[in-house]
Amino acid sequence: MNLDLHASSIDITRLICDVESVSGREGALADLIEEALAGLPHLEVIRDGDCIVARTRLGRERRVIIAGHIDTVPVNANLPTRFETDTDDDDRIVEYLWGRGTVDMKAGVAVQLKLAAELTDPIADITWMWYDNEEVAAERNGLGRMAAHRPDLFAGDFAILGEPTRSEVEGGCNGNLRIEVRTRGKRAHSARSWVGENAIHAAAPILERLVAYSPREVAVDGLVYREGLNAVGISGGVAGNVIPDECTVTINYRFAPSRSVEEAIAHMRELFGEYAIAIVDHAAGARPGLDAELATEFLAAVGGTARPKYGWTDVARFSELGVPAVNYGPGDPLTAHADDERVRLDEILACENGLRSWLTRD
Amino acid sequence: MNLDLHASSIDITRLICDVESVSGREGALADLIEEALAGLPHLEVIRDGDCIVARTRLGRERRVIIAGHIDTVPVNANLPTRFETDTDDDDRIVEYLWGRGTVDMKAGVAVQLKLAAELTDPIADITWMWYDNEEVAAERNGLGRMAAHRPDLFAGDFAILGEPTRSEVEGGCNGNLRIEVRTRGKRAHSARSWVGENAIHAAAPILERLVAYSPREVAVDGLVYREGLNAVGISGGVAGNVIPDECTVTINYRFAPSRSVEEAIAHMRELFGEYAIAIVDHAAGARPGLDAELATEFLAAVGGTARPKYGWTDVARFSELGVPAVNYGPGDPLTAHADDERVRLDEILACENGLRSWLTRD
Repeated sequence: MNLDLHASSIDITRLICDVESVSGREGALADLIEEALAGLPHLEVIRDGDCIVARTRLGRERRVIIAGHIDTVPVNANLPTRFETDTDDDDRIVEYLWGRGTVDMKAGVAVQLKLAAELTDPIADITWMWYDNEEVAAERNGLGRMAAHRPDLFAGDFAILGEPTRSEVEGGCNGNLRIEVRTRGKRAHSARSWVGENAIHAAAPILERLVAYSPREVAVDGLVYREGLNAVGISGGVAGNVIPDECTVTINYRFAPSRSVEEAIAHMRELFGEYAIAIVDHAAGARPGLDAELATEFLAAVGGTARPKYGWTDVARFSELGVPAVNYGPGDPLTAHADDERVRLDEILACENGLRSWLTRD
Repeated sequence: MNLDLHASSIDITRLICDVESVSGREGALADLIEEALAGLPHLEVIRDGDCIVARTRLGRERRVIIAGHIDTVPVNANLPTRFETDTDDDDRIVEYLWGRGTVDMKAGVAVQLKLAAELTDPIADITWMWYDNEEVAAERNGLGRMAAHRPDLFAGDFAILGEPTRSEVEGGCNGNLRIEVRTRGKRAHSARSWVGENAIHAAAPILERLVAYSPREVAVDGLVYREGLNAVGISGGVAGNVIPDECTVTINYRFAPSRSVEEAIAHMRELFGEYAIAIVDHAAGARPGLDAELATEFLAAVGGTARPKYGWTDVARFSELGVPAVNYGPGDPLTAHADDERVRLDEILACENGLRSWLTRD
């Protein structure tokens, strides 16, 4: 098989979707990408595991990083891809490419690959990055691994991540905190329940507090971030005839990027201070970074209004490295990971045109 | 090894405790019991699996069934048994036999075995029953199996079960119902929680209702039964970043024997009617049965005041077969299944003397 980067971005999307690359098994796709770029004189190609970096060295004043992950969540009878035609709410005909990875995020990668090959003379130097293992635990993330191996590759003035945004600019991302809130009781035989203390009953105020909680909407650098506080797990119980002595509620707090992880934890302690709290994992948010000069130019070139990104994405990694970053890619993020994941073809082309017009100042 | 039924009931307790017989592995102990009884001319011995039945056929007007289970819950570094001396709240010295099974319920079985061998001329015919698998799921219960195989063996006017009661008479037992109450929601990525509906949050009113519930105290045939309503399990959650679409609360309702299983279920539907309810298992309670003639004589012979039994025991099986039944055995039921399970030696002797004086009208 051969990956022809002169093909349309739609055809490239289709081809790289049909090469299955569930997290941890990105090798074949990484090989294809590496081979497709290898002959191009304007790019230096570097491989680290299943990450491929390709960069121009034109001596431009500014450098932009444009990145995308090449893995997908597991396939569920939704490959190979197929074209679909549907109508929208206004009865207009809309064409889609259906299948795993079309939205999250191979259409974005396809556009990036096409432009990497095509743009030999962009307005800024470009570091293209395609990486593995984004859809799994953070410690496996290819971008994180590469940042540890080759921090020099992350030098840049602005970064664009091709996560699905319906080809509109989405800035920054919320932070993400997961905690376990634990109640304690005293075991007893349930035939004599008054001898014990029921830890599941003791969890009632935790759920009540979650129900009563009003998540904030927070303006950060001009974008409004909507927070969320949710139980994502609950477990308790010893046996069918035992008063349980422990109950654990796992809570996920998505917080605006104006709040640090430490502040988010402090907020949880305010809410659930009388219980034992364990921090399960956390990731800082990222401010939208739309005040960077390149970001302003980018926004002007692609048009539209920037919106906040709610989900945590790898823009936060760039943000931590001091590189302002936004999300910009085809596909409706609400359909990411869904079994009926599908991308509008016009969004693929809009993303391609948006990036090209900015990078070539057409 | 040999089981000498001329030994003291304390020594017999110790010996049969030291023969491990966790539910499902009662064979060795059943063999010992069968051998010990085999030579006795006043008893007909019948074996069914690991159940041993021994009965007199003296042609008495009345027949009493005296039964005990020979299995225990799992051993947890609490065998072999040992003697312990302690002081009670009034600084009196108390002697104990410590170890798995001493309370639940091998001391009771030991007393029964000793008297089975000794009482060749009791006031009523006696059917002794020792059975397996009481501590596990009801469908494995040896008494239930034997009732299906040999219902004729269950003919009797009164039954005594040797479950631990501190050698005082405890009448009847509460019924037992376990249900699952389920909430439904709608899955969504937790970064956009407002798109979903959180089924764990939806369980808050269930827990609130359990907390607010006041269990009844119900007088039945002169004994007051205390009910209990408790969550014994809760589970919900799909993944750390998903709004959960289902949460299940497992609830255990212990209800007075004046209420039928159907009435208990109806009460649960009153309380949790707006949720999906699944019946997990149920067992009818047993009225105390203290109005039976043999029961009255028994109470008079052993002295003390009858009390209600809270836990479900196999007296309910006898009750369903039309045989009034009470619990009467050595050991504090609050220490049953505990790792520091231990039985007072004076309670073993009190039980032995109580049964003997009634059955021989000493």
